[in-house]
Amino acid sequence: MKKKSTFIEITVVGKDRKGVIADITNFIFSNDGNIDELNQNVVNGLFGMHLKASFQNIHKENISIGMTNLSRKLEMEIKIHFQEPGRRKNIAILVSKEAHCLTELLDSKIQGKIIADKVVVIGSENSLEHIAKRYKIPFYNVIHKEQSKAELEILRILEKYNVDLIVLGRYMRILTPNFVWRYPNRIINIHPSLLPAFPGAYAYVQAYERGAKIVGCTAHFVTEELDQGPIICQESFRVLPRDTIKSIQSRGQKLESKTLLAAVLLYLSDKLEVNWGKVILRKA
Amino acid sequence: MKKKSTFIEITVVGKDRKGVIADITNFIFSNDGNIDELNQNVVNGLFGMHLKASFQNIHKENISIGMTNLSRKLEMEIKIHFQEPGRRKNIAILVSKEAHCLTELLDSKIQGKIIADKVVVIGSENSLEHIAKRYKIPFYNVIHKEQSKAELEILRILEKYNVDLIVLGRYMRILTPNFVWRYPNRIINIHPSLLPAFPGAYAYVQAYERGAKIVGCTAHFVTEELDQGPIICQESFRVLPRDTIKSIQSRGQKLESKTLLAAVLLYLSDKLEVNWGKVILRKA
Amino acid sequence: MKKKSTFIEITVVGKDRKGVIADITNFIFSNDGNIDELNQNVVNGLFGMHLKASFQNIHKENISIGMTNLSRKLEMEIKIHFQEPGRRKNIAILVSKEAHCLTELLDSKIQGKIIADKVVVIGSENSLEHIAKRYKIPFYNVIHKEQSKAELEILRILEKYNVDLIVLGRYMRILTPNFVWRYPNRIINIHPSLLPAFPGAYAYVQAYERGAKIVGCTAHFVTEELDQGPIICQESFRVLPRDTIKSIQSRGQKLESKTLLAAVLLYLSDKLEVNWGKVILRKA
Amino acid sequence: MKKKSTFIEITVVGKDRKGVIADITNFIFSNDGNIDELNQNVVNGLFGMHLKASFQNIHKENISIGMTNLSRKLEMEIKIHFQEPGRRKNIAILVSKEAHCLTELLDSKIQGKIIADKVVVIGSENSLEHIAKRYKIPFYNVIHKEQSKAELEILRILEKYNVDLIVLGRYMRILTPNFVWRYPNRIINIHPSLLPAFPGAYAYVQAYERGAKIVGCTAHFVTEELDQGPIICQESFRVLPRDTIKSIQSRGQKLESKTLLAAVLLYLSDKLEVNWGKVILRKA
Repeated sequence: MKKKSTFIEITVVGKDRKGVIADITNFIFSNDGNIDELNQNVVNGLFGMHLKASFQNIHKENISIGMTNLSRKLEMEIKIHFQEPGRRKNIAILVSKEAHCLTELLDSKIQGKIIADKVVVIGSENSLEHIAKRYKIPFYNVIHKEQSKAELEILRILEKYNVDLIVLGRYMRILTPNFVWRYPNRIINIHPSLLPAFPGAYAYVQAYERGAKIVGCTAHFVTEELDQGPIICQESFRVLPRDTIKSIQSRGQKLESKTLLAAVLLYLSDKLEVNWGKVILRKA
Repeated sequence: MKKKSTFIEITVVGKDRKGVIADITNFIFSNDGNIDELNQNVVNGLFGMHLKASFQNIHKENISIGMTNLSRKLEMEIKIHFQEPGRRKNIAILVSKEAHCLTELLDSKIQGKIIADKVVVIGSENSLEHIAKRYKIPFYNVIHKEQSKAELEILRILEKYNVDLIVLGRYMRILTPNFVWRYPNRIINIHPSLLPAFPGAYAYVQAYERGAKIVGCTAHFVTEELDQGPIICQESFRVLPRDTIKSIQSRGQKLESKTLLAAVLLYLSDKLEVNWGKVILRKA
Repeated sequence: MKKKSTFIEITVVGKDRKGVIADITNFIFSNDGNIDELNQNVVNGLFGMHLKASFQNIHKENISIGMTNLSRKLEMEIKIHFQEPGRRKNIAILVSKEAHCLTELLDSKIQGKIIADKVVVIGSENSLEHIAKRYKIPFYNVIHKEQSKAELEILRILEKYNVDLIVLGRYMRILTPNFVWRYPNRIINIHPSLLPAFPGAYAYVQAYERGAKIVGCTAHFVTEELDQGPIICQESFRVLPRDTIKSIQSRGQKLESKTLLAAVLLYLSDKLEVNWGKVILRKA
Repeated sequence: MKKKSTFIEITVVGKDRKGVIADITNFIFSNDGNIDELNQNVVNGLFGMHLKASFQNIHKENISIGMTNLSRKLEMEIKIHFQEPGRRKNIAILVSKEAHCLTELLDSKIQGKIIADKVVVIGSENSLEHIAKRYKIPFYNVIHKEQSKAELEILRILEKYNVDLIVLGRYMRILTPNFVWRYPNRIINIHPSLLPAFPGAYAYVQAYERGAKIVGCTAHFVTEELDQGPIICQESFRVLPRDTIKSIQSRGQKLESKTLLAAVLLYLSDKLEVNWGKVILRKA
């Protein structure tokens, strides 16, 4: 009988230097692992690597110790995600000032639709603190003009709550590669257009100005390329002759909440697999 | 009581030279016309101008003679479209090898949905000649490797049938500005995506590869910028996990025919107005 | 003997409404003017129009009064620029924190290379105030988080100094159409790349990351489309294997000052003509 | 004393399937190799992989046999390039109808600037056959309307001549991923613009129409993304007020020949290294 494999994911982020790929892959092999996928990126001197490996017999402790040693040797931050089926996930919701997505997610938590362990809310301002409080969810206000500083603080919070999934509920700032590469296929964003149409800011205004007759929204994984990550869910509605930018936005926001929630539920039920930049639905 | 205005449209195309705008607008004024809109373009040394004017008392003959004289003086091709409410329009359908749009349009003609005077079909190959014949519609096969030569021949056919509306029913060639500028807001194309997403060739393949969950098609007026003209109608459908490129294409094509037909019917009922690159539905 | 024509330019900006083009052009005609060029634009409900006209016999006062009346009737802001050959121009230099362009321009003023009447400096922060002071040039610090508010204040300063030419000397904010349309072909920017390559922010970093071997800078007129206005001057230099982002920036900045100065001098000597989005050098 | 490493490159192309990366990397490791770089791509169901590995003690025969076996098992085409310092390279020059690049390259071969073993010319038409003949170089005329068919024939010729480097000397067709992925960093193209400005067809016309004041050409490695591969060399020249499209093209073509030759010479002298999409000059 064939034994079931254990899957792990490793992310490596740091200043670009020679030999990183060789060292990491050598370690996998000397521990009898198989490399299933490997992606590397360099932007502005920053190196990021994402590796999926599978093991017939995994010694988690050995791998953890080995990666800690490699991290020190290579002067890179290395993070391992072991597959732990059945474990409840921890979720961070990042927000700015729009409330509709946060409310929908926290409602769904209370109603038992979202089954998670810890949930934490991080705001780029404190407008939505009262909502988190109402639901008795911890709220962190991370205000920094410079995004890289804000992200360092957010990373510490994510570490503290051992966060598995980051949900951007209309978080109006652009995450840097240094952040994104640490959570490959673990950051879900909601964008107010049928991507790839109307990326960037003011998507409803863009759509209205262009005269689009069908508009919508997209829940997608976040990659280092803005609004270009793998699409998880999309929903659409029709623009009518009497519609204004305001009426489009209003209908759009309701759809955003639902679409984002649907994507989060798919993620939590372990149904999402990303293959070559495309989301594939795993069978239960 | 205020008299109703008569609207005319004038297109001017030719080698760029000084004074064209002054001469044309002077003529309108000296005939007591108002200039309602004026657009100019120059691409690759070719000048194109589109003018809308309105008159309280119009002397069509004077205007026709004046424009003929100006055309000679400026060495430009000038065309006038007088508003003739109630007159049945003449339609040219341009096709390549896909039959579904042509069949839908000719069926609708027979069923009395499309009410037109003359209809003519022009093919970039002869694959669909038999369909035109079946419906007893004249078919012209215009084959030229060079598009500019093909267009000269097409322009002669359009002239012969005094064509008001050109419908591109999956015509797989790109029209040049020299052609497009002669028929501003009179050429309707069907594009197999929800524009502005997936412009260009192989739109369904692009959408499938990108992992789009909602796809569709767009009927739009043709401008000199590929797939960027004013949107008339859009229709969408959902991509399911089991879908293949083929199954998407197959559902898409059915929608293309219906969407193109809807746009043609709106045009023929004089309901379409183009304002700053956007289609606006006129009230009956 | 043919009398020489007088040229005027008119800009119209305001909330989009019907009949503006007709009213303005009718007025030109009833004053025996010729329309040489006419451009309109609508973005986000804001209408902008730029018209060039020529007159054999011009009554400036009549035209000024007429335009004031039209402005009131149409509820649009209308501005007329009369051609006044020989009159010394007034210049506003907009800056943020980089000093090199400002210093080059003010030096050239002192050295008599730049011959202008009034010069004023407007900063989006006060970092460069000391430089303006050193040259005894008035400095205005216009700080507003919202760009539209900043622009209203800047417009008042431009009005006060009756500014003809606006020079963006590394002004790090994006001007809105509402501002740009009031000064067509009168705003000169310096962009740190050989446009159309590397538009947007961090152009040298983009070029370095892309591995470009020849880089440079571009002085261009500003239009409502970012970094896409008519190119006036470009200068280039070679990236060497030992170059870093820093060394490229350092050489680039020296070139920026010179290129911007060259463009300003061409403008002041009335040598620049913009024809269909392209700069043409007029003969002296 | 540390032994010098031997470097190999492996390309894998075929229908996408699971386990390919694991099988290839496992093989490298079980032969004591290090993985230095690994890139994968999937376009339209076609999988392409490019791997660089290094070995302290390499048994070339074992590796060749192992890869042949893997190729059979995985049903993928696998190709190994062993580093063979000092071996003279074989070159294929792909052309269409413009002669200037071909003539420059063949002249340089005769003059001893280009030191190569075999040289072969492949044309998408037979216009330049007489030139190849004059230099006594074999010429293959590969005419297929469908590019994928043409490429299969070209691949056979490349195999026959054991080609190391493919030079596109104004080859006017777009290579598919299926072709490009088999020769990573081994196909050099000359593009008539300073990329990333003016990609695509008619680059000089684009530059002229845009009013660029500095134009040029770019020799670059070809990747599956059109005109976006790593830049090797760029050369520029100034557009003067009296220039026409013709005069720009004429000066440009002279520069194209020289720039392409410079890139080829750098390649043949083993000075080019591609690191994260950027060309780096190796020290001798």
